[in-house]
Amino acid sequence: MNDAEPASESADGPPRRRRRDPEGHRAAIIEAARHTFAERGYARTTLREIARRAGVTHGLITRHFASKERLFLAAVPGNRDLEQVAAGDPETLPDRIAAAFVRRLETDAVNDPLIALLRSAASDERAAAHLLVAMQEHSAVVYRSVLSPGESPVPGDDLDTRVALVGAQMIGVAFSRYIARTEPLASMPPDRLTEHLTRILRQILFG
Amino acid sequence: MNDAEPASESADGPPRRRRRDPEGHRAAIIEAARHTFAERGYARTTLREIARRAGVTHGLITRHFASKERLFLAAVPGNRDLEQVAAGDPETLPDRIAAAFVRRLETDAVNDPLIALLRSAASDERAAAHLLVAMQEHSAVVYRSVLSPGESPVPGDDLDTRVALVGAQMIGVAFSRYIARTEPLASMPPDRLTEHLTRILRQILFG
Repeated sequence: MNDAEPASESADGPPRRRRRDPEGHRAAIIEAARHTFAERGYARTTLREIARRAGVTHGLITRHFASKERLFLAAVPGNRDLEQVAAGDPETLPDRIAAAFVRRLETDAVNDPLIALLRSAASDERAAAHLLVAMQEHSAVVYRSVLSPGESPVPGDDLDTRVALVGAQMIGVAFSRYIARTEPLASMPPDRLTEHLTRILRQILFG
Repeated sequence: MNDAEPASESADGPPRRRRRDPEGHRAAIIEAARHTFAERGYARTTLREIARRAGVTHGLITRHFASKERLFLAAVPGNRDLEQVAAGDPETLPDRIAAAFVRRLETDAVNDPLIALLRSAASDERAAAHLLVAMQEHSAVVYRSVLSPGESPVPGDDLDTRVALVGAQMIGVAFSRYIARTEPLASMPPDRLTEHLTRILRQILFG
């Protein structure tokens, strides 16, 4: 890794994050990306700025993530953690999706790239719309693997539509609660929102 | 109506729209408002520009609609026609709402003020968020009148939440289909979209 920064470990025990550790670099890049995308939107964010904030070189970012688009998809928490969240009993998939979605946005909606993406898409940035599609396609693959693990995915079957409608419900809730901040959704307790969302997602996926 | 334009009727039969007809003025103002809000967004639209496009005076607009906010709410088709759409059997309310929503956006999404409103709200215009709330409150009153015509409305009951979640689903679908234009929602046949939306709205309202 010739573009990593020179190691400068202290003598008193192992440092919390080693300078030449690829995982440490990866985490620092993702953290910087999350903040930069949230602050500047997708289109105006440059890999150069993310590199500066993460304290790494531009080349190291492209080595880890190949492109701005792939870095974005890796940085969106809901997208990144989806396999982990979705794994389990197919019957309770809606519960897990709803709970993870609410928990994640409650933790840090301001720095959530999904919110930045919705704002960007609303200003007619085609790149943002393209990313929403990429996230949705990823969701469809993951949901499909949980819902019918034994069967091979059938392209064009109804599940793609259902995943898109799940996406639409989540976009609408994120928009109402975190962007427009309209009541009663804006100040509904997270548990209550999760209950409602679970009920609706169950109907969309299985109804 | 001293600020109406001077009458200039031709001699050969009654004109299609009489110059001093309040209903004709009202329709012309709403038509001009729809286009102007859609083109410029809520915040940048002025009553002066709407007056110019409608060929009436500024004073006539405020006489008919009192304020820009009230004119906007009168010009959003879904909001304006809601009483008419909602009236009927409570059991099939979701069918009527879904069908009217899809039909209306299919007719002219480009000039639909709701789309302009979502774009404005996404750019953090508080005025736009305020209007979304006003539309939602209007919906709650209308739905309540259909769902429990015999009972007096109970403020704060669960119906407000359900109406907000119906609104969120519609915002998400409008966003995906008409703003970000993500597949498969973007090119789904209107009838199919109406079916899915009816099923989901039924669950949200009654489930």
